[in-house]
Amino acid sequence: MGRDLSALFDPVSVAVVGASDDPAKYGHAIAAQVIRANGRRPVHLVNRRGGTVLGRTAAPSLSAVGEPVDLAVVSVPAAGFEDAVDEALRCGARAIVAITAGFAETGDAGRARQEAVAERVRAAGAVMVGPNCLGLADNTTDLFLASDTFTPGGVALLSQSGNLALELQLRFRPHGLGFSRFVSLGNQADVTLVDLLADCARHEGTRAIAVYAEDFGDGRAFAEAAADAGKPVVLLTAGRGDASARSAQSHTGALTTSADVVAAACRDAGVELVATPRELTVVLAALHGGRRAADRRVAVLTDGGGHGVIAADAVEAAGLTVPELHELTRELLREALWEQSAVANPVDLAGMGEQDPGSYAETVAALLAADEADAVLMTGYFGGYAAAEGGLGGGGRALAEGEQAAARLIAARHRAIAKPLVVQSMYPDSPSCRTLAAAGVPVFGATEDAARALAATAPRAPHTGVTPLPSPATPLRETGYLETRRALEAAGLAFPAAREIHDEAELLAAAGEFTGPYVLKALHLLHKSDAGGVALGLAGPDELLAAFREMHARLGAPSYSVEAMADLTDGIELIVGVNRDPRFGPVAMVGLGGVLAEALHDIAFTLAPVPADRALHLLRGLRTAALLDGVRGRPAVDVEAAARAVETITAFAAAHPEIAEIEVNPLLVRPDGVLALDSRAVLA
Amino acid sequence: MGRDLSALFDPVSVAVVGASDDPAKYGHAIAAQVIRANGRRPVHLVNRRGGTVLGRTAAPSLSAVGEPVDLAVVSVPAAGFEDAVDEALRCGARAIVAITAGFAETGDAGRARQEAVAERVRAAGAVMVGPNCLGLADNTTDLFLASDTFTPGGVALLSQSGNLALELQLRFRPHGLGFSRFVSLGNQADVTLVDLLADCARHEGTRAIAVYAEDFGDGRAFAEAAADAGKPVVLLTAGRGDASARSAQSHTGALTTSADVVAAACRDAGVELVATPRELTVVLAALHGGRRAADRRVAVLTDGGGHGVIAADAVEAAGLTVPELHELTRELLREALWEQSAVANPVDLAGMGEQDPGSYAETVAALLAADEADAVLMTGYFGGYAAAEGGLGGGGRALAEGEQAAARLIAARHRAIAKPLVVQSMYPDSPSCRTLAAAGVPVFGATEDAARALAATAPRAPHTGVTPLPSPATPLRETGYLETRRALEAAGLAFPAAREIHDEAELLAAAGEFTGPYVLKALHLLHKSDAGGVALGLAGPDELLAAFREMHARLGAPSYSVEAMADLTDGIELIVGVNRDPRFGPVAMVGLGGVLAEALHDIAFTLAPVPADRALHLLRGLRTAALLDGVRGRPAVDVEAAARAVETITAFAAAHPEIAEIEVNPLLVRPDGVLALDSRAVLA
Repeated sequence: MGRDLSALFDPVSVAVVGASDDPAKYGHAIAAQVIRANGRRPVHLVNRRGGTVLGRTAAPSLSAVGEPVDLAVVSVPAAGFEDAVDEALRCGARAIVAITAGFAETGDAGRARQEAVAERVRAAGAVMVGPNCLGLADNTTDLFLASDTFTPGGVALLSQSGNLALELQLRFRPHGLGFSRFVSLGNQADVTLVDLLADCARHEGTRAIAVYAEDFGDGRAFAEAAADAGKPVVLLTAGRGDASARSAQSHTGALTTSADVVAAACRDAGVELVATPRELTVVLAALHGGRRAADRRVAVLTDGGGHGVIAADAVEAAGLTVPELHELTRELLREALWEQSAVANPVDLAGMGEQDPGSYAETVAALLAADEADAVLMTGYFGGYAAAEGGLGGGGRALAEGEQAAARLIAARHRAIAKPLVVQSMYPDSPSCRTLAAAGVPVFGATEDAARALAATAPRAPHTGVTPLPSPATPLRETGYLETRRALEAAGLAFPAAREIHDEAELLAAAGEFTGPYVLKALHLLHKSDAGGVALGLAGPDELLAAFREMHARLGAPSYSVEAMADLTDGIELIVGVNRDPRFGPVAMVGLGGVLAEALHDIAFTLAPVPADRALHLLRGLRTAALLDGVRGRPAVDVEAAARAVETITAFAAAHPEIAEIEVNPLLVRPDGVLALDSRAVLA
Repeated sequence: MGRDLSALFDPVSVAVVGASDDPAKYGHAIAAQVIRANGRRPVHLVNRRGGTVLGRTAAPSLSAVGEPVDLAVVSVPAAGFEDAVDEALRCGARAIVAITAGFAETGDAGRARQEAVAERVRAAGAVMVGPNCLGLADNTTDLFLASDTFTPGGVALLSQSGNLALELQLRFRPHGLGFSRFVSLGNQADVTLVDLLADCARHEGTRAIAVYAEDFGDGRAFAEAAADAGKPVVLLTAGRGDASARSAQSHTGALTTSADVVAAACRDAGVELVATPRELTVVLAALHGGRRAADRRVAVLTDGGGHGVIAADAVEAAGLTVPELHELTRELLREALWEQSAVANPVDLAGMGEQDPGSYAETVAALLAADEADAVLMTGYFGGYAAAEGGLGGGGRALAEGEQAAARLIAARHRAIAKPLVVQSMYPDSPSCRTLAAAGVPVFGATEDAARALAATAPRAPHTGVTPLPSPATPLRETGYLETRRALEAAGLAFPAAREIHDEAELLAAAGEFTGPYVLKALHLLHKSDAGGVALGLAGPDELLAAFREMHARLGAPSYSVEAMADLTDGIELIVGVNRDPRFGPVAMVGLGGVLAEALHDIAFTLAPVPADRALHLLRGLRTAALLDGVRGRPAVDVEAAARAVETITAFAAAHPEIAEIEVNPLLVRPDGVLALDSRAVLA
């Protein structure tokens, strides 16, 4: 259900501790905002020198206010922070917005200080945002506790950066996007990103949630909350590169997470992951209307070939398709358009739009109605006939009016048919484009933005969701080769027959228990294969013995494993591993190529445990997945069995939090099933 | 040296045939433009009805003009096109700009008509642009033969699309970019993209050449001309996706080329390949100033962490690096900045910029001077202090003035140090950013644009250049397995020993000539391996004979090849092929994985022939190149020998235009050299 943040977003009364009359002080900027919503709730300004702030009498202390305060904004020097918070709690504050900086971001001492305060806040049954935050705003309750005004709208923004919030504010405007809430996350000493995400998911006034975070706190909980949000969640984050990871750590003490893990968690949770403020804006503009395409097929139309093919390329590059149109649709278009128009996909009006803008509307209507198109992209000159520039062939009033009429018709078709329609125009600010935008049609100036927007409306990948962690099993005490192997076998993973041996007598006894060819492995060595501690394909007992003598003389390992050599014919080797991420918990890694997987760069990540159906989807999604179905006359391998093995291994790892990393490599997949040829695990 | 196009770009006199007083006619729009440059050269308007056009007396025919016409713009109905051109040639025209449409784009008949006209134009020693073009403009000679005005500047635009030219015109403006020339390519019946590229390369007023083309004509010549241009060439093209290829073909009868081949040609020729008008503008804005970075190391600075890390990620995603700064630089910055500033890379002023905008200038100066940075990116809020929006903490006059002063200081440092400096600002249109832009610093609103711009200024890849085609060798008459093999052996490529045999006696005789294990291949079969026509690892003559009997009974091939089986241990299999592209000539393909290369999707393309040094670069650039150096205890293979083999194969193919495709697959690369295990060729 999540924490009750009502006092944070709709307090009965508000006080600003550290309100100031000095325009250079943040306590001034905030106070100026807070008093804007005067009528809604009592507002008190507190300045220890008393006097007047913004023309109102300031109380010398919170206690001096003389009535209970529901929410206190604390913007005082770090030295006085604890006292200010304690006084606020004494005055009955159920919520604290802590602007004051100088805590976790300055090091461990600061972290200890903020944790002590957060402890007391929780003990008092209150909640605290920050410290080291820029405040918050809720346009649905006239609550303005940040130095800036945010245009009202449906997007809740949870941000670890103030300047990025300002850039988004600027970028939202032309798309008619605005904010339901803005929360500056600060150091998340008490109220976390996850708490806020869950609350915004419940918040009626919020239609989409935008997050900028460098530190996810409990990343697993973030993914779960996002998966359950029931509204679009778009994540802008940094740390994909070396430098940003370096820097994020240094400048907020943030614990960053590998880009692969964040991307995997977002895929699992159905979160739209974006890389820049611009991309975030484009995705929100696309999702804000709540339209989703049924599939990935896009119909493109333009009035001049160039824009059509450029857009078609951009759409396909964004992972969508631009299929041929059905004959029925082409017939319809042939009747509506003139002879030189191309009625393929992209549709090219070929100048007819300039003669008769109504042809745009007829074409859009036909494509929105076409079964073979899940979404429509109009690209190029539309908007130019009414724009200041006349464009090739000149504009003229009649054209301008015709274009406006077409815009209204297109808007009407858009209302009537619930498919995504996206527009790229050379004149996005033209009256006709404004007409479309006002009707909820996303309009962009750049082709790549329109393509990205369409990609955002495409249906989610199958098997989206975060699988809950199983309850912990009895911890492993040792993770030597044989212990790990035994545990995985007990969990249901098949290995070739093996016997641990210490001397030649035991070796020969073991060799008698099954037939060759044999494998000999030296045990209790790190990276045994790199150390030359693995001998493969030993035809019979004699070769086995010879290999043992050579290896033992060289390595002198305490013990060895004699194993039946698996038949590698027609087999494909996989690597399946699980690492425990401090933020996101157990993360599974599946790759093709076994010991060569790293060199082949063909690895996929997802949160563990991984149900077999998602594992299958993951395997099928590998770049070299074609190998699984058999190429150049090789037989297909048993991918379903491989998927079940992935489920077994990842479920095992998820139930063993004491294991920092575990790897089955290679996992041999044959036409008739799977066999784990080697495995290793490391305790946390 | 290329064709003389002086009459096209600086004619002595101009006539518009088909000039019209009807504003709806293109002949009106062009005439209106042409007469703008009245003073520069005589301009004649021709309309077969005579009368007045744009208030001037129109001649009823070109002959009626009564004086020679150097350049004739022909904008008449298709029916009268040939007559108009012939009359122009009779009147001494050395250049024709053919607006009239209805030729190659309508089918073969139209193509034949335009070719006949082009023939007569060339016979008369004249040149013709078009037909089916929108005209041209040369701002350096006041020549305006298109319906639109193009802002003067240093970019020559050669475009197959009019609307795209208009979009570029709009996008160029904020970056201070303009046009030296604009040429609408049309059907390229006479003057081609290549002719124009070569002429613009020589043109003094042109600093960079932008091309939008769907059909490259002689793509090989295009690549060669671009490689020799001596100024930036930026190519916007379509056809990467299925739909755009489909459409480009249908709507201009263009012969499109596979995206891989175009990308390879651009890499070889040092052409910047872009996908959208926006990207083209960004790259031109970056290259226009003529600055190139010495290497790929970028220093990033911002005033608020978020923008810094987002930008660092974007820069690394663009293929550049954001390295740690030297201690010396960090020391300098520590002295210049305040305590909470982060002097890592990205540098984070952490609010100091808002207190003292001068800190931006000091930081930029330090980073431009730092040896460890080849380029500098300033990102985030700069511009906001003077912008309408105050931003967090509010703006204020003093701040605005401080920011302007900082902008001037930054501009001065930029003038003094020839490293690329790029700015991303939330307020790209602010006075301070305009100051920077005016000083030649590229300023962008979007982080990804700034990163793309920096990538464009990075040094070219090594081995850039297009290797000339060798003179043709004696053509092969047959390309059966053995003929191809012999020809490649003669060219210097090593194969295992082989003997062609027709019966058991010859088989056993062959087996005696070298030792096993043997390989048996059935000849004169398509895809012999898929057909089961290849038997590997036949230990001795008995196994060879058995395999022969089984295979011959099954396939009854006319003859077979008995070969020595190569030792595959520690070997890596490559695929090396050359296909002859109708536009770009012989194109080489090099991939890892031999017969599995397709499934591994690890293939690189380049124009053939491929010198060994470029082949080495190509091999090292493969995604799985790590395999070549030996992983997991395997020995490294002889990559240099592989590169030499690529040179041998591609040089051979380039010298044999009669071969449509040739493939050596697998090419076995071992620690001690290479061996071609199989090959096939197909005649054109």
